[in-house]
Amino acid sequence: MTKINIQEKLSRFSDHWHPRIVGELNGQHVKLVKFQGEFVWHRHEEEDELFFVVDGAFDIEFRDKTVRVKAGEFLIVPRGVEHRPVAEEEVSVMLFEPAGTLNTGDAGGALTRGELDWI
Amino acid sequence: MTKINIQEKLSRFSDHWHPRIVGELNGQHVKLVKFQGEFVWHRHEEEDELFFVVDGAFDIEFRDKTVRVKAGEFLIVPRGVEHRPVAEEEVSVMLFEPAGTLNTGDAGGALTRGELDWI
Repeated sequence: MTKINIQEKLSRFSDHWHPRIVGELNGQHVKLVKFQGEFVWHRHEEEDELFFVVDGAFDIEFRDKTVRVKAGEFLIVPRGVEHRPVAEEEVSVMLFEPAGTLNTGDAGGALTRGELDWI
Repeated sequence: MTKINIQEKLSRFSDHWHPRIVGELNGQHVKLVKFQGEFVWHRHEEEDELFFVVDGAFDIEFRDKTVRVKAGEFLIVPRGVEHRPVAEEEVSVMLFEPAGTLNTGDAGGALTRGELDWI
């Protein structure tokens, strides 16, 4: 029962597309991640994923539309839906998703982060 | 796949201790609530509960300590742990917890909100 300060946790890392775990509840993880540039198209077969923007803004591209999400906003991507995060400038994001969710979903590849650290 | 703006949702209600649902994923609900004053001591037998402060600050009292949680911070209360939120001044909070979690847990009473609305 220790409180977590988001900005303090964000100050501990600077690399992109590499989520860190900051909380766990009901089988879900709370993660922090910084995005910059273009991610890979992917889907999560079994997991819904929430993106809450802490600082900055980014686009979540879907096959039929793009949604810009800014600080103080969140978007839930349902399981099975292909998406691609794209951040023109650096953005800090808090994720809520089931423990074990792989960042690149079904796509795999060089940006995959299999084992995530707690910070 | 519609993005949710927290402040816009908060502007839609002004009563205290009455959570509204703003998102659902993986069997969990995302809720917004405004606290002011003292809530009731209670526990949730089966649900861990995350309190993320959007605006303001409040205290989460436990039987052996009190933790002050401020804007940009969150705290997870594990299932089974007695707690009581106390807000000297109004505070806006985002909750993340299993769908169906009752706000007063095992305590019941006048502050119980059984059926929550989506906003």
